[in-house]
Amino acid sequence: MLYLIGLGLSDETDITVKGLETVKKCSRVYLEAYTSILLVDKTILEKYYGRDVIIADREMVESASDEILNDAQNVDVAFLVVGDPFGATTHTDLVLRARDLEIPISTIPNASIMSAIGATGLQLYNFGQTISMVFFTDSWKPASFYDRVRENRNIGLHTLVLLDIKVKEQSLENMARGRKVYEPPRYMTVAQCAQQMLEIEELKKEAGEGGVYDEESLAVGAARVGGKTEKFVSGTLKQLCDSDEILGGPLHSMVLLGRRTHELESDYVREFAVDKECWDRIWKRDYEGKQ
Amino acid sequence: MLYLIGLGLSDETDITVKGLETVKKCSRVYLEAYTSILLVDKTILEKYYGRDVIIADREMVESASDEILNDAQNVDVAFLVVGDPFGATTHTDLVLRARDLEIPISTIPNASIMSAIGATGLQLYNFGQTISMVFFTDSWKPASFYDRVRENRNIGLHTLVLLDIKVKEQSLENMARGRKVYEPPRYMTVAQCAQQMLEIEELKKEAGEGGVYDEESLAVGAARVGGKTEKFVSGTLKQLCDSDEILGGPLHSMVLLGRRTHELESDYVREFAVDKECWDRIWKRDYEGKQ
Repeated sequence: MLYLIGLGLSDETDITVKGLETVKKCSRVYLEAYTSILLVDKTILEKYYGRDVIIADREMVESASDEILNDAQNVDVAFLVVGDPFGATTHTDLVLRARDLEIPISTIPNASIMSAIGATGLQLYNFGQTISMVFFTDSWKPASFYDRVRENRNIGLHTLVLLDIKVKEQSLENMARGRKVYEPPRYMTVAQCAQQMLEIEELKKEAGEGGVYDEESLAVGAARVGGKTEKFVSGTLKQLCDSDEILGGPLHSMVLLGRRTHELESDYVREFAVDKECWDRIWKRDYEGKQ
Repeated sequence: MLYLIGLGLSDETDITVKGLETVKKCSRVYLEAYTSILLVDKTILEKYYGRDVIIADREMVESASDEILNDAQNVDVAFLVVGDPFGATTHTDLVLRARDLEIPISTIPNASIMSAIGATGLQLYNFGQTISMVFFTDSWKPASFYDRVRENRNIGLHTLVLLDIKVKEQSLENMARGRKVYEPPRYMTVAQCAQQMLEIEELKKEAGEGGVYDEESLAVGAARVGGKTEKFVSGTLKQLCDSDEILGGPLHSMVLLGRRTHELESDYVREFAVDKECWDRIWKRDYEGKQ
């Protein structure tokens, strides 16, 4: 049997009781470690499970899935995923390959940032499509997210922005030379995300296609959702460009507010505002009662 | 401290290890039992937690929250919610009231149907806003969901439909006579949902506002997501009108497919099709490559 087990969002105790019982009886245990991370180390997980944990990087999951699925018709294999097993596309692919090999599959769900973001106080019903924000480089600033934000905002909906993480990445030079030397991991912060969003808005404006949001658009930054040190901050995009110190370490996520926002949502979220007066002013001017 | 603890979707072992440790040490334990249900009985939970469990119905949570929050400045109170604590609006309200009373709050997230629906193989990125479908009566057929489905479909997105449950409802006669006699619980099935959706499409068409979906629109029905007897079925809305037998008991949810659908999603979902040839034909005609 192939077990896809969600680990939740924070530490080793966020696994469900069912998940823990299952992982303990599996012959092999893989941890998917490139679409998200837990806030604890692999060795802590190994001790907690009483099992060796094999780190499955992108290369292994996408190219060497035979290894993961090997003999899973006869033995129990656990594939652990931070959050919920179906949060990321790659795992659908793994299941399809398991199906082809007639391997039985069982899924143990858990909290995903896609729903846990409700802890901001914003209603999940009012969210449109989720987007991802990748690290820009000097020459690569993919802006396909912009049209999706526009679609959400046109109908008044919030947008959850998932922020890039870079784990086990090689520098171009090391890659060219075939050296298996990896850069230190990087996790995008809410501040970086807000800066990149405003940068794209500027570029779009110059091209005559702008106006989806601006420096005074309201947003909520979230850090370590579901963990003991969970932290939220709300404010304008401009204000969130300076939120690194308030929010602290990874992982971060962001929500850009839609206009179809319930008063209860604002009451909840203004509590986290860097500047409550400023929040109230913009809320009244641009959001309250606007559809 | 007020602990909001998600129970996940299926049985008593879907609570997280952290959640279980917390509920065991709480002085009072409430179970919110009107926006969703677990598939196991209260007595099983009480035995599992080693704690009495107080059922919190809508009336208690909305009007008698003082009782729930009583002395939570000094003692630990657990408020258990099926799925994730922030899935439903009501709980935001409870937290706001706790804040006013300066009660510290801690949230323990869990799987929600909003993310666990990814187990259908449909990508969470491709979902628009979620809608709720309530039981129609002869004189009350609320159709506000229709415009939201239209908004999602206009931009090619899937729509998750959450289905009504009726727990501890009084008949009009009993309500009028003040008799505290309750009807047996009712849980909407995918078949009922599909029928109601087609009924509204007919009414809209007669009013000249139709065309959001039709009998041949593709959809996926899901039952007991995350549980051992989890079951999916895919097909046209017309086909899903007869899916009760395939899907079995509650809880059910439904997804109406959007056109911005990835081939991988169709590969995954057609596996559950009541009629694969029909699925392929409509997929090719109306969905594949259509934006």
